[in-house]
Amino acid sequence: MTTSLGFLIAARRCEIDELDQLARTSELVGTLGRLVHALQRERGITNVFLGSGGQRFAAERAAQVADCLAREQQVRVALDPLVDDPRRLAGGARLFPRVAYVLQGLDALPALRARIEALSIGPDVSTAAFVKLIAGLLAVVFEAADGATDPDISRWLVAMFNFMQGKEFAGQERAFGAAAFLRGGNDDAQRQQWLHLIESQERCFGLFCEFSDETLRTQWQASQAPAQLAELERLRRIGCTSPAGTVLDANLSPLWFEGCTRRIDAMQAIEDGLARELRALCGRKIEQARAELQRYEALQAEAVKPGDFFADAASETAEAPAAGYGRNLERSVLQMVQEQSRRLQAMNDELQTVRASLNERKVVERAKGLLMAHRKLSEEEAHKMLRQTAMNQNRRLVDVAESVLAMADFLPLGASAPR
Amino acid sequence: MTTSLGFLIAARRCEIDELDQLARTSELVGTLGRLVHALQRERGITNVFLGSGGQRFAAERAAQVADCLAREQQVRVALDPLVDDPRRLAGGARLFPRVAYVLQGLDALPALRARIEALSIGPDVSTAAFVKLIAGLLAVVFEAADGATDPDISRWLVAMFNFMQGKEFAGQERAFGAAAFLRGGNDDAQRQQWLHLIESQERCFGLFCEFSDETLRTQWQASQAPAQLAELERLRRIGCTSPAGTVLDANLSPLWFEGCTRRIDAMQAIEDGLARELRALCGRKIEQARAELQRYEALQAEAVKPGDFFADAASETAEAPAAGYGRNLERSVLQMVQEQSRRLQAMNDELQTVRASLNERKVVERAKGLLMAHRKLSEEEAHKMLRQTAMNQNRRLVDVAESVLAMADFLPLGASAPR
Repeated sequence: MTTSLGFLIAARRCEIDELDQLARTSELVGTLGRLVHALQRERGITNVFLGSGGQRFAAERAAQVADCLAREQQVRVALDPLVDDPRRLAGGARLFPRVAYVLQGLDALPALRARIEALSIGPDVSTAAFVKLIAGLLAVVFEAADGATDPDISRWLVAMFNFMQGKEFAGQERAFGAAAFLRGGNDDAQRQQWLHLIESQERCFGLFCEFSDETLRTQWQASQAPAQLAELERLRRIGCTSPAGTVLDANLSPLWFEGCTRRIDAMQAIEDGLARELRALCGRKIEQARAELQRYEALQAEAVKPGDFFADAASETAEAPAAGYGRNLERSVLQMVQEQSRRLQAMNDELQTVRASLNERKVVERAKGLLMAHRKLSEEEAHKMLRQTAMNQNRRLVDVAESVLAMADFLPLGASAPR
Repeated sequence: MTTSLGFLIAARRCEIDELDQLARTSELVGTLGRLVHALQRERGITNVFLGSGGQRFAAERAAQVADCLAREQQVRVALDPLVDDPRRLAGGARLFPRVAYVLQGLDALPALRARIEALSIGPDVSTAAFVKLIAGLLAVVFEAADGATDPDISRWLVAMFNFMQGKEFAGQERAFGAAAFLRGGNDDAQRQQWLHLIESQERCFGLFCEFSDETLRTQWQASQAPAQLAELERLRRIGCTSPAGTVLDANLSPLWFEGCTRRIDAMQAIEDGLARELRALCGRKIEQARAELQRYEALQAEAVKPGDFFADAASETAEAPAAGYGRNLERSVLQMVQEQSRRLQAMNDELQTVRASLNERKVVERAKGLLMAHRKLSEEEAHKMLRQTAMNQNRRLVDVAESVLAMADFLPLGASAPR
């Protein structure tokens, strides 16, 4: 029967459903994170392998490929039940196309590895391929963070996404720097790109710190203590601030690579911590919601006072409430309804705040999409164009993206822009 | 098995699920709209009944109460299956507390009507009570519009909400004006409040026009043609622009009431049109999504080319693609994935635009919540305070609400504001 309390209970059941879905999404995000880490290592090792004409790191590479395959298998096992039961996760309509994209990349990996094995591609092509696949994996995490309906869980997913994205920039910096030292020098654009990778990392880790908790923040800051980073900072300074024409010492390349790798491996410990905290949080939230559901259900057996819906309307005027319309001292169903509404509003406000931090990336994605449509560019080309413009004009990527969007109406093919 | 195409299909299934849920929500919104209309009539008739000391409109009132009960029954029948199967609608966690609130109001209606029958309350108290219940019903429609995940359906729900809200302001204006003519005059604050009701209507109908389609917009504009409104505008001018102290002719009250009622009844035809369009739109969308799902499913039987995931990454550098990595001329799964992603992004952008129009109300609700928490006000008192400030300062309600929120950090009880 359609009672007010019945709908409060139904609302709680929906919340528990959503939390169950979010717990599964969070679990998937953790599994994806471990695959990303393995692919980042494979990318680094592969670069050395290709750079040395197959002389170095052949065994390491074989071991790392095996590790990647195992982690890929874990991802596939986690994805498997979703095809037949898409409601296991929330927001499948938006999440699953991202998953489909990632599966395309994973399916294409064996062929890529065969080309690497045969030394038929160079480190640049290989790096670009891994960057693309990892970007696809991170897009799944982003979508999960953006689609989360619980502000506390959303907060952690945002922290997690930013940490993973920061770590990916660190991985790209490792590859970029290693190549620069090997090459023996940087031109202006390359130095700019290196600085861009450093700034991008810092912005991501800043957001991670904002949305994470004290414990993980402290752990992160300890791992980034000056003493830990001194050597890396020295190499960064040599690599990206020496004037054009300076010849870099190729022997610094392995030193750089190892320093970066230690830093990135230390990051993995924090990412595991994030995944653990997220899991624990989901567990606590579900437990709490179930307890509240039981409390509500128990009330159904009792005769709870409905509350006086029109009391406020009456009290607005000077009339005294009629007999039987006095305010209840006990907690009425009406009070419970109002509490629930207030709680949901507070949650929603908080959710908007957390999601706002994801807007920057969305703006960049939208601008990329616009450039792809209007200039017939690939995604990579569109991104490169934005990044190049940002570097040339010494502006932030997101500001350039904003300008592109603001100009959308003036672009020739207005029809393909979303109405 | 976790194939890329499998996830594209799963994403489509999720979309169809969401559309089915939205169709049910839209159906419910239509049913709620008809109850709102009946309650608005009951409010108007009750005012005359109470104002005449029970002498006038007794029979009309009895008939209208019967109509309301029938429409309430339709609402309850529509709500009934949701308690046991909350997933029939999307976003139940946020929608159902609003429904629970409405049910509180409907459950309290018989007692309110008994007090009206006994002439134990005045028209002001009765009006405030109906206003409160109707606001609760509109809040369900608002939540439905805000929670919709399809931009086209969201657009119509936003049009519908704004039309219903505008119509409610028109109903409040009818009651307010009728009382003013009966009373024989308006003070400054009352004149301000009358003007506020006119402005609020116009803003709502403006948004309705923005989000509706050509046909309904034309129909609306025809119903608002100067010839139709001339008499009403004359009475508005007399009522709210004559200097303080002017005695209004009480005989104008029924004239005013009938003019307003004709206008509001004409609105109902447009609201029915909105509900019809919304239903048809949901039907078309579901049909279209099902057809696309079948197309995808048919592809599973064929061997669709996966597409070359790493082609772009490779083409960024000068290397020629290796044998077997040429671009496919046929539509590959990868292209389908990219199309789907672009489509979803365009939909999401559009959805953000539509939802932005709902922000104004959210800001006002947030400010009200803040005042309720900090000043221990009832919802009505908080709203009155905002409205009064807006009138005193000659600012828009939303601007006052923004100021309140901006001052939140300076309010003494900062702890109860959402983090």
